Amino acid sequence: MRVLLLLAHGSRRHGSNEEIRHLSQRLAECLRDCYAHVAPAFLELAEPSIPAAIDEAVNAGTAEVVLFPYFLSAGRHVCEDIPRLVGEARQRHPHVRLELRPYLGELPGLIELIVASLRER
Amino acid sequence: MRVLLLLAHGSRRHGSNEEIRHLSQRLAECLRDCYAHVAPAFLELAEPSIPAAIDEAVNAGTAEVVLFPYFLSAGRHVCEDIPRLVGEARQRHPHVRLELRPYLGELPGLIELIVASLRER
Repeated sequence: MRVLLLLAHGSRRHGSNEEIRHLSQRLAECLRDCYAHVAPAFLELAEPSIPAAIDEAVNAGTAEVVLFPYFLSAGRHVCEDIPRLVGEARQRHPHVRLELRPYLGELPGLIELIVASLRER
Repeated sequence: MRVLLLLAHGSRRHGSNEEIRHLSQRLAECLRDCYAHVAPAFLELAEPSIPAAIDEAVNAGTAEVVLFPYFLSAGRHVCEDIPRLVGEARQRHPHVRLELRPYLGELPGLIELIVASLRER
């Protein structure tokens, strides 16, 4: 059973966190053939936190957690905070595979998407 | 002469701001048929600021500035800070067309891009 966690920053705006939850639901629908469960996890300002979401997945019996940082650039959160949280989780759960994927800003095809949107009028 | 400004948050990490500048250059290459100039503009922590980048484009003779928020969710920056800065710039430059485009997180096709990346192993 593989679980996908959508890692987001979290916001003081309720609507912004709801956007992430909604995206998580859409990903769950689109990826149901790959992931038994998809859930959001927030770095700050919203719940659940990243450690809490990882622990919850592990406690539910997951052997593999895939973590996708929904971040655009390699700032402090992507380069330091998230790897540190994942490292700590690996120490708490040495028998669970925790796979940290490339962050959104690094995905191939992103620039083509932006170019297409800025070309249309 | 139309100018595109890539609006980003800005980071304390030099490398993160360089990512934005690099993306801006790539967009300039891809969109040279649509925009005479493409430049980054930062909300905070990096230069140029959004107002400074707008003013510079206007002073260079631009009649139309397209602003693309490189942000993922409708938090305070997208909903309040950027519209306020654009509104203030419209008051400074009433004869220039300032077009605020939808932010990255709203672009059609983004979820398909994410789904494809999370499906591949």
